[in-house]
Amino acid sequence: MSVARTSRLLVDVHTHVYLPRYADLLRSRTNVPRILTNSSGEERLVILKDEPSGGRPVGPQYWDRGQKLSFMDKHGIDISLVSSANPWLDFLSPSSAESAAADLNQDLEEYCSSSPAVSSEASLRRLYGFGLLPLVPGVSSSAVLESVKQISSLPHLKGLILGTRGVGKGLDDPELNPVWDAVAQAGLVVFLHPHYGVDARAWGDVDNGHVLPLALGFPFETTVAATRMILSGVFDRHPNLRLLLAHSGGALPQLSSRLASCIAHDPVVASRLKHDARYYLGKIYYDAVSYGPEEMRFTSDVISRADSYVSSETARVAADCKVGAKRMMFGTDHPFFPPLSSTEMWKSVVENLNSIDTVQGWGQQEKDSVRGGNALELFGL
Amino acid sequence: MSVARTSRLLVDVHTHVYLPRYADLLRSRTNVPRILTNSSGEERLVILKDEPSGGRPVGPQYWDRGQKLSFMDKHGIDISLVSSANPWLDFLSPSSAESAAADLNQDLEEYCSSSPAVSSEASLRRLYGFGLLPLVPGVSSSAVLESVKQISSLPHLKGLILGTRGVGKGLDDPELNPVWDAVAQAGLVVFLHPHYGVDARAWGDVDNGHVLPLALGFPFETTVAATRMILSGVFDRHPNLRLLLAHSGGALPQLSSRLASCIAHDPVVASRLKHDARYYLGKIYYDAVSYGPEEMRFTSDVISRADSYVSSETARVAADCKVGAKRMMFGTDHPFFPPLSSTEMWKSVVENLNSIDTVQGWGQQEKDSVRGGNALELFGL
Repeated sequence: MSVARTSRLLVDVHTHVYLPRYADLLRSRTNVPRILTNSSGEERLVILKDEPSGGRPVGPQYWDRGQKLSFMDKHGIDISLVSSANPWLDFLSPSSAESAAADLNQDLEEYCSSSPAVSSEASLRRLYGFGLLPLVPGVSSSAVLESVKQISSLPHLKGLILGTRGVGKGLDDPELNPVWDAVAQAGLVVFLHPHYGVDARAWGDVDNGHVLPLALGFPFETTVAATRMILSGVFDRHPNLRLLLAHSGGALPQLSSRLASCIAHDPVVASRLKHDARYYLGKIYYDAVSYGPEEMRFTSDVISRADSYVSSETARVAADCKVGAKRMMFGTDHPFFPPLSSTEMWKSVVENLNSIDTVQGWGQQEKDSVRGGNALELFGL
Repeated sequence: MSVARTSRLLVDVHTHVYLPRYADLLRSRTNVPRILTNSSGEERLVILKDEPSGGRPVGPQYWDRGQKLSFMDKHGIDISLVSSANPWLDFLSPSSAESAAADLNQDLEEYCSSSPAVSSEASLRRLYGFGLLPLVPGVSSSAVLESVKQISSLPHLKGLILGTRGVGKGLDDPELNPVWDAVAQAGLVVFLHPHYGVDARAWGDVDNGHVLPLALGFPFETTVAATRMILSGVFDRHPNLRLLLAHSGGALPQLSSRLASCIAHDPVVASRLKHDARYYLGKIYYDAVSYGPEEMRFTSDVISRADSYVSSETARVAADCKVGAKRMMFGTDHPFFPPLSSTEMWKSVVENLNSIDTVQGWGQQEKDSVRGGNALELFGL
């Protein structure tokens, strides 16, 4: 692999697919989550109870690989690391989840392995993937580990995507320790993605469409999940775990010093962790899906400062935001956030690309890293 | 008032009191919120259902003015703008809330007006206050407006503190429009403070003390409330409203570009507001209670960039973080976050002071503004 040639590739680490098999599964259901056909003959995806606006319209952009590739072409994206979209297998019984995971991982491998080569770098495909684990209440530990093994054996799957519920008790559940072990050992990247948000009563009575659950609920959920992982010592026990947080970690960067302060002031947890909470933010990876250069710069600052929190005795030094740029990666969230009016380029994508390009303190090297270099390295491409 | 003399004052805009009358009210109750005496004879404050660790120990630091002043002396704080702590009057009937607000506002006026003068500036007292409105379901509009009038008439009350519930439907409730009008016209500062967090099921089964509700739930609640205000057009209709957000606005700064993107992509709200959501963040004030210089710098960046979002046609310019420093103000959150071990200085206070002092891009002038100058100006002292 030529570093010179690959260093300018644009790589999307946050892009979803509802594989045809999964879309069929959703169509076969009569409860949420489901795909239904409304009275106008339009298919709509309803993934949450009480979903605003009767769910969202879905079409081939959700499952058709040709549309994914044409979206990539339109935006100059060389490689996409495609993941199943929420809610994954959360709604299935253990045995259904196990067989669906096995089938969908195989489908995704096929989806990726038969994709075109990158034109400037023939050894690379345009599509790689994140597999699925059958993480549902009641699943056996061995079935989950079997699934980790399957994913590791599929050459185009480079990680796995998961939600925040684990096997029913969240990601701070000690039952998951063997999973973190196996995943870390296999070198798979764990992509943590929200689905449930927070209790919808928080949004009040005014109709604001999907704005509050998407703009706030999603990042809150990610923030809670990552924080609970930190608090439960997951990163102390599994220092090689490679966790990628959706939407730039939600609100975790901005709340991390408050978190550290709350920990230091609470006798229940004050002595539990090896490091100040801020230290762990430097061990995590973040997509660059935050739509603003100031947000990206800040996330990069928070990563950069992490090592100065290895212990409370460490002298704090001014953070060099270039360090943080090594752990951030371009993403689109396709096929979500389509433009309201038909335009050539998607506003959501353009905003994230422009933001990467205008982060104060990042030089060309950092921008190229975030655009693609970091992903190539993290996913071993 | 001599600018030269006052410009170096340290002013705390986020510091709470349970006035003796309020503490007695909590003692008289058998349901949450309440102050109870446990089997060891210790008074404990329980303000939330299912509160972790059986509530928190309370003592004279919660109500005794002498202790407030000695805390201020210890940390070099010249002036405090004292506010009642959560949950204010939320649990009362309309008539009880009305009379309690009237009495407590009068008590707080007395608490402030009889406080010592600032030694370097004899025209100033050491204590000023935020009054309370009887914001409970079923209260009459005229009673709330009467309360606004009372607060405006009390010379040492410079604003009012409120939670996120309004009169039961949150702060995006159109019923509150006359209140915003009256408050803006009276030039009172509205201090928005969280209490309820988010649904506690988000925190899972592991005992993490108060960390998750305090570190995450509180800022989430503030973020939701401020966002709902923005979405409902409060700032479009009341451009002179002066809103101060607790805990540096929670996660609002970090989620503001995502918010703008979600609004732009949702047909329900896309055309509702006069400006991009990020614009409104420049019309808000923020305490500097975020415990880290990177957090403060970022909040200041987000305020600074706001004007470039006045319309979608405005050319974006690199934000000068000095602009944002004009809207941020030192706070302590006293008497919360006391040190676990007895130390001369409170860690929580030292962290915020050190953070102000080490924000990259702030010169001495910005630091002095955030330490006190901005508060003197905002509160007309």
